[in-house]
Amino acid sequence: MSDRPKAVVLLSGGVDSATCLAIAIADGYEPYALSFNYHQRHAVELAAASRIAAFLGVTRHLVLDIPLGKIGGSALTTSIDVPKDIPADRIGQSIPITYVPARNTIFLSFALAFAEVLGAGDIFIGVNAMDYSGYPDCRPAYITAFEKMANLALQKAVEGQLVFRIRTPLLRLNKAQIIKRGIELGVDYSLTHSCYDPDPTGLACGRCESCILRRKGFLEAGAPDPTRYAKQP
Amino acid sequence: MSDRPKAVVLLSGGVDSATCLAIAIADGYEPYALSFNYHQRHAVELAAASRIAAFLGVTRHLVLDIPLGKIGGSALTTSIDVPKDIPADRIGQSIPITYVPARNTIFLSFALAFAEVLGAGDIFIGVNAMDYSGYPDCRPAYITAFEKMANLALQKAVEGQLVFRIRTPLLRLNKAQIIKRGIELGVDYSLTHSCYDPDPTGLACGRCESCILRRKGFLEAGAPDPTRYAKQP
Repeated sequence: MSDRPKAVVLLSGGVDSATCLAIAIADGYEPYALSFNYHQRHAVELAAASRIAAFLGVTRHLVLDIPLGKIGGSALTTSIDVPKDIPADRIGQSIPITYVPARNTIFLSFALAFAEVLGAGDIFIGVNAMDYSGYPDCRPAYITAFEKMANLALQKAVEGQLVFRIRTPLLRLNKAQIIKRGIELGVDYSLTHSCYDPDPTGLACGRCESCILRRKGFLEAGAPDPTRYAKQP
Repeated sequence: MSDRPKAVVLLSGGVDSATCLAIAIADGYEPYALSFNYHQRHAVELAAASRIAAFLGVTRHLVLDIPLGKIGGSALTTSIDVPKDIPADRIGQSIPITYVPARNTIFLSFALAFAEVLGAGDIFIGVNAMDYSGYPDCRPAYITAFEKMANLALQKAVEGQLVFRIRTPLLRLNKAQIIKRGIELGVDYSLTHSCYDPDPTGLACGRCESCILRRKGFLEAGAPDPTRYAKQP
C-alpha cells in the first residue's frame, strides 16, 4: 500500500497529458492513468500513453474502449479530413472540425467512476486555456461546472467521504511553458505522440494543428523537438 | 424530414424510461433513443429497450457498448450479490450496492454528444426523486448542475445555436403515478423489464429492489402487473 493519496490522470499520450502525469507524481500523488480507445484516427497515441505510463511509473494504466465513432461529428472519429497548414496564430480562434462532441465530459465522467472506485479524490486533466485550439471543454468555467456536478453525482461526495477535484495544472501555461516544466520533471517527450493524422507507420504529419502547436512549443521552449515527422516540414 | 424538434431519450428498457419516451413523443418531440450495454447483469433489459423503441416509434435507436464492468464498484456490473427482500419502505434511505459509480453522468455525457451531432437541444432521462432508491445522480440538484456544465461544454451551446436541457418529466412522480401516466399514453408495460437479477431465461426475480418498487407501483396504480416472475412472489 502506498501512503500517497491516489489520483486519476487522464493520459492521451501527448505532450500535455504526459506533463500533467509528471506534475501529479511530483505533487505527491499515487497515479492511476486512464486512456481511451475511441477509434480516433490517431490511435497510435495509445501506444505513446503506455510508454509514458511505464516510463513515469503508474500504479495502474486502464485503457477503456468507448464508441465515440458510432456518434460521429468529428474529423478525429470519422472520415472527415483533418485540416492542414493552418497558420499558428489563427489556431484557437474558432472551434475546429477536430472538436469531438462532449469528449472531455465523457472522459472525465469515466474518470469519476474510476476515482470513486479507487477512493481517489483528485482527477488530473491536461487542458489548457492558452493555446487550447478553441475547444469549449478546455475552459476554466467548464472545469468548475464539471467539478460542481461531480460532487453532487457521486456517493462518496454525497456521503462526505471524498471531495472530488478536477486538477488542471496546465490551465494557464502555453505549450512552451508546459514543455519547459516537463523537461524539469524529467519527461522524455520522444515517448509522446501529438499528430492527429499520422501516417500508417505512426510518423507525424507535421501539418495538422496539433503538430503545428507542438513544433511551435519546442521552438519557443528552446528545446530540441524529438518528433519524428513523415516528411521534414 | 420531421418538423418536430429532435430529442434524445435515454432508454434502459424499464418502466421509467419507457414512460419518459412516451412523454417526449406526447410533448411533440422526434425521439432518438439511446441505450447502453454496460455488461449489466440484467442485459436482458436491452431487448426490452428495443421492443419499446419499436412499439412507441423512434427515428433511431442507438445502443452503445461501454466498459463500466472494467471499472467495477457495483453489484450490477460485478459478481457482488444483488440484495433481495429489502422492505419497500426502507428502499431509498441509503445508497445501495446496486449504485453504479457515475452511471448517469456517463450516460448523460454520451447523450450530450449524440444530441449535439443530431442538433437536438433536449435530453430526456427518467430519473425520479420520489422512490429513486437513494441514487445521488437522480436528484434535482445534480440534474441542474449537469445541465449547467453541458451548456459550457458543447460547441453548439457556446456558439449560441442550441440550449441543452435535461428533461426529467418523472422527477416528482412516484412509481404508481408514472405507471398511470404511461397507461394514459398507451405504454405497453409488458414490453418493459425492471429486474436487476433475472434468471437465465429473462424472468424477473421478484425480490430485488427494482422488482419490489415495480410491483408496489402497479399495485398502487390499481393496474395489472404484466411482469413475468421466475417464481410467483
